[in-house]
Amino acid sequence: MQISLIGIGSGDPQQLTGEAVAALSAADYILMPVKSGERRELSHLREIICARFAPGARILAFDMPERDPLIADYRARVEAWHDEINRRWLAALDQVPEGAGVACLVWGDPALYDSTLRIAGRARQSRAFSLRVLPGIMSLQSLTAAHRITLNELTEPFLVTTGRHLREQGWPAGISTLVVMLDGENSFMSLPAEGVTIWWGAYLGMEGELLDHGALALAGPRILQSRAQARAARGWIMDIYILRR
Amino acid sequence: MQISLIGIGSGDPQQLTGEAVAALSAADYILMPVKSGERRELSHLREIICARFAPGARILAFDMPERDPLIADYRARVEAWHDEINRRWLAALDQVPEGAGVACLVWGDPALYDSTLRIAGRARQSRAFSLRVLPGIMSLQSLTAAHRITLNELTEPFLVTTGRHLREQGWPAGISTLVVMLDGENSFMSLPAEGVTIWWGAYLGMEGELLDHGALALAGPRILQSRAQARAARGWIMDIYILRR
Repeated sequence: MQISLIGIGSGDPQQLTGEAVAALSAADYILMPVKSGERRELSHLREIICARFAPGARILAFDMPERDPLIADYRARVEAWHDEINRRWLAALDQVPEGAGVACLVWGDPALYDSTLRIAGRARQSRAFSLRVLPGIMSLQSLTAAHRITLNELTEPFLVTTGRHLREQGWPAGISTLVVMLDGENSFMSLPAEGVTIWWGAYLGMEGELLDHGALALAGPRILQSRAQARAARGWIMDIYILRR
Repeated sequence: MQISLIGIGSGDPQQLTGEAVAALSAADYILMPVKSGERRELSHLREIICARFAPGARILAFDMPERDPLIADYRARVEAWHDEINRRWLAALDQVPEGAGVACLVWGDPALYDSTLRIAGRARQSRAFSLRVLPGIMSLQSLTAAHRITLNELTEPFLVTTGRHLREQGWPAGISTLVVMLDGENSFMSLPAEGVTIWWGAYLGMEGELLDHGALALAGPRILQSRAQARAARGWIMDIYILRR
């Protein structure tokens, strides 16, 4: 058995690479985690990709478990959750004959803030399969492309971090550019705005894409409002931003 | 006039996204900087992409200038160099009629350690054109995919930096993962190896791809040797690595 983890970027079929399309076309099965309450718009994008590029593949859908709120420790809670996802992977893989090819679609790139590679590592402890990873366009790339900016200043480093880290630890010394992901709490408002520029994007590469940028002091409150409005209107939001000083 | 900066990843035609292929097919002209002494293998990959996806486009080739070694200050030297590239862009664009589409191929992604976006910004000061950026797979994504690892540890940040920064400033506090690019000088050997793991790759996504990983104390000297051998055999090397502790 071969399992391919395929980065699908924003879910726009045009954002898939040629090798991702080829891997989908070659797949006999598609392992498809279904999140309870997942936005119809997102599952619909995945269905479009499967129908277009892997029309003959059989879908192995399974319900994604929730994290157990009774486990207080964050890491222990995530470990238990990964264990449970792995059990469901293994149950699904039991339906796959020897020698078949399995694809698993991953938003963005499997390398970035995603658990699929960790689950595949667990599954390999009890099943024999070869594992292939195909990169996809990450939301931070859709963000820089939409704003037509570079990630780095001339030869300078940049940090990719999360909203929680930014809130808890502030702006790290010696780094002029931060890419902030997984921020549901407007963490950019926790910073001194002086001398900071923000480039923000939501629903990148999807219908209704939103962009804004400017001095944090002015753009920050504006983005705060856009986020609240968009979330209220659409029921969910996925966004990312770059800060530079 | 519309100019599209198109990320082409490693140069493997299969790594282009669908939207990159569509933008190439729609291009009337391709702006093609030619580096003196550029490796035939690299220019050949670009030619294959143009021939396959933009067979009807006219190539606007121009010689890339060298940086002026007489300008001592690094930033001033780069600014003067960008000014000179811009003059050559403008001369090439003079051949493009109103309303035409121009494509410019960029290794990896135009957002990362590349000057094309800066040149385009300069050119817009003296020519009217719309500018579009299409992301491509970055070498750090080819690296994580080849090693089947994640960029980040669970919810942790990571820093993308250069060999020079690593040598001059050491390992930044509070960050467990470093992605190191543009390192011609084996800067990983300048670090205390204790507790550090390295994942290295050269010629990623190309013929003769090399991979190695392990504890830095053991893998470091091995990679040093591989780099020297590969560079001697092939005449050039392009590589990247991740360090984690």
